[in-house]
Amino acid sequence: MDMSASGLPFDDVRRLFDLMPGPDEEAVAAVKTRDADLTKPAGSLGRLEDMVEWLAAWQGKAPPEVRRPVVCVFAGNHGVVKHGVSPYPQSVTREMLENFAAGGAAINQICAAYDLGFKVFDLALDLPTGDITQEPALDEKACVATMAFGMESVAGGTDLLCLGEMGIGNTTSAAAIYAALYGGPVARWVGRGTGLDDTGLARKRTIVEQALATHAGHLDDPLEVLRRLGGREAAAVAGAILAARLQRIPVILDGYVVTAAAAVLKALDPRALDHCLAGHRSAEGAHGEVLERLGLEPVLDLGMRLGEGTGAALAAGVVKAAVAVHTGMATFEQAKVARGPTS
Amino acid sequence: MDMSASGLPFDDVRRLFDLMPGPDEEAVAAVKTRDADLTKPAGSLGRLEDMVEWLAAWQGKAPPEVRRPVVCVFAGNHGVVKHGVSPYPQSVTREMLENFAAGGAAINQICAAYDLGFKVFDLALDLPTGDITQEPALDEKACVATMAFGMESVAGGTDLLCLGEMGIGNTTSAAAIYAALYGGPVARWVGRGTGLDDTGLARKRTIVEQALATHAGHLDDPLEVLRRLGGREAAAVAGAILAARLQRIPVILDGYVVTAAAAVLKALDPRALDHCLAGHRSAEGAHGEVLERLGLEPVLDLGMRLGEGTGAALAAGVVKAAVAVHTGMATFEQAKVARGPTS
Repeated sequence: MDMSASGLPFDDVRRLFDLMPGPDEEAVAAVKTRDADLTKPAGSLGRLEDMVEWLAAWQGKAPPEVRRPVVCVFAGNHGVVKHGVSPYPQSVTREMLENFAAGGAAINQICAAYDLGFKVFDLALDLPTGDITQEPALDEKACVATMAFGMESVAGGTDLLCLGEMGIGNTTSAAAIYAALYGGPVARWVGRGTGLDDTGLARKRTIVEQALATHAGHLDDPLEVLRRLGGREAAAVAGAILAARLQRIPVILDGYVVTAAAAVLKALDPRALDHCLAGHRSAEGAHGEVLERLGLEPVLDLGMRLGEGTGAALAAGVVKAAVAVHTGMATFEQAKVARGPTS
Repeated sequence: MDMSASGLPFDDVRRLFDLMPGPDEEAVAAVKTRDADLTKPAGSLGRLEDMVEWLAAWQGKAPPEVRRPVVCVFAGNHGVVKHGVSPYPQSVTREMLENFAAGGAAINQICAAYDLGFKVFDLALDLPTGDITQEPALDEKACVATMAFGMESVAGGTDLLCLGEMGIGNTTSAAAIYAALYGGPVARWVGRGTGLDDTGLARKRTIVEQALATHAGHLDDPLEVLRRLGGREAAAVAGAILAARLQRIPVILDGYVVTAAAAVLKALDPRALDHCLAGHRSAEGAHGEVLERLGLEPVLDLGMRLGEGTGAALAAGVVKAAVAVHTGMATFEQAKVARGPTS
């Protein structure tokens, strides 16, 4: 597919980047002014202060609010699973969606603990993507349609969007995306996913190498990387990130798979993730290196590698506390506390 | 004061270490068994899983519970403040206590966000400790009495104790404790506290050096380090940590000052902090190096350096979520999700 042709669906996606708003510097300045008056030494809350500025910048509001935070989980199936890249069968994707619906998964408990809304989107689970060792995961129309679905899922008035995913086989897809975007030996990007043994890990590396060889010559365009090597959940996540930017909704990214979708956007436009916070550093693959390449400093580093949005949701708990601190604290004047001369 | 004499109050403290219970290995085993049945890949929740095992080990209960978490903040004043080691006047200690009581401090907002109980203890604010450049901060009886006060403060049925402190000048005291316990150049341990400029930082280093010189020859015993260089809040924190162990209450430590009290206990007995989690890595002084020496891996690393228990309380929010995940998740059997062969 020749991406230089005009009028194709991907061109519609590209045009959206021109509409992305920048940060609201006035809102950031207002947050900084209030922060300097709060009863604490200047800068003593470190990244909690940064988080509030970040929220204000991208909500365009001071003080920012987190009243309707939502975790959106996108689920898809992957043709590449036939090659034994996961110790779990493909049927587990749907079984886990039922577990989400019944409230039995890890992400349900974290959302309940921090009072986060929770939505799950079934992305045509009965239609696994193409086997990326043989063919593109998606054709261009399906990729754009899934991105559009992801964009629409953002509607509904949330003020903080946490993105998660579910899909047996999707760490293979994500590893292929990273290898395509960043190069280097494939082994660097491939992790054990849900728990591969050494033999399985070696097989997964070979599969990713085969996928890269199959699509060689077509991977200069990040959107081609997404549709050829990605999955429906990655496409939907990419759409959701873009839509959130356009609607001034800050985003918390989850781990290895969500970040692969984000990396595609960053490769298209270096400003594309400015409204995104990395929820955590995943233990999967080379996620830490990916975050460094993206210029994202994770909120948490707890050795997690589950997905489902769990890392993003945990980070949302910290962000909610940061906003509560900023909005609820007394000023020096209100509390009649003496200011330090250097504060 | 000769510590080899028997019958002195410090000997009463020493005897408590013999009563410290070890971890409840049965409870840990029960947590591991349940964890292996939960609908997630084995080990995929990383440190969240470790936290639940740690709670079970020290509560002696499986599953562990966090129903009545409490943040206890101990506040004291310091004679060393007369040397200009803080940009804030000593009066701010009491002003901040009033701010705590009115609900206007950072810690109040975090406790509200995570539904943590909150208690503040005024440790004779009108009686600052001795100027450590000239004399011991406390005599032995006052030190032990304050430790006993800290021990009593733990009563009341909490199942997770977060420890914090407030006291203008207390990072100077904490730096002196670290320098006494660990040696090396004083500059390594001295930070900017609430926001000293370069001149103030140099002065603070000189003050800590003077204190160490004044008490040279009396610092081999960690309890002597505590009473000579510490403060009332450090003594109370040390007592609270000990009492919590004896009552099977897991403890989350806050940052630079709370950890100094903990370091005294660890120097007395290498098992003394086994029931403690480091809430966060403070940006103050060499807190990261201190945690490494203590074998504690912090839950959070957010560049905070406020004290008040804020780092411990934020970590408690994560611990609460970890327990919610462990107790609320469905098992593979309950959710009818297929197990991976290697899970």
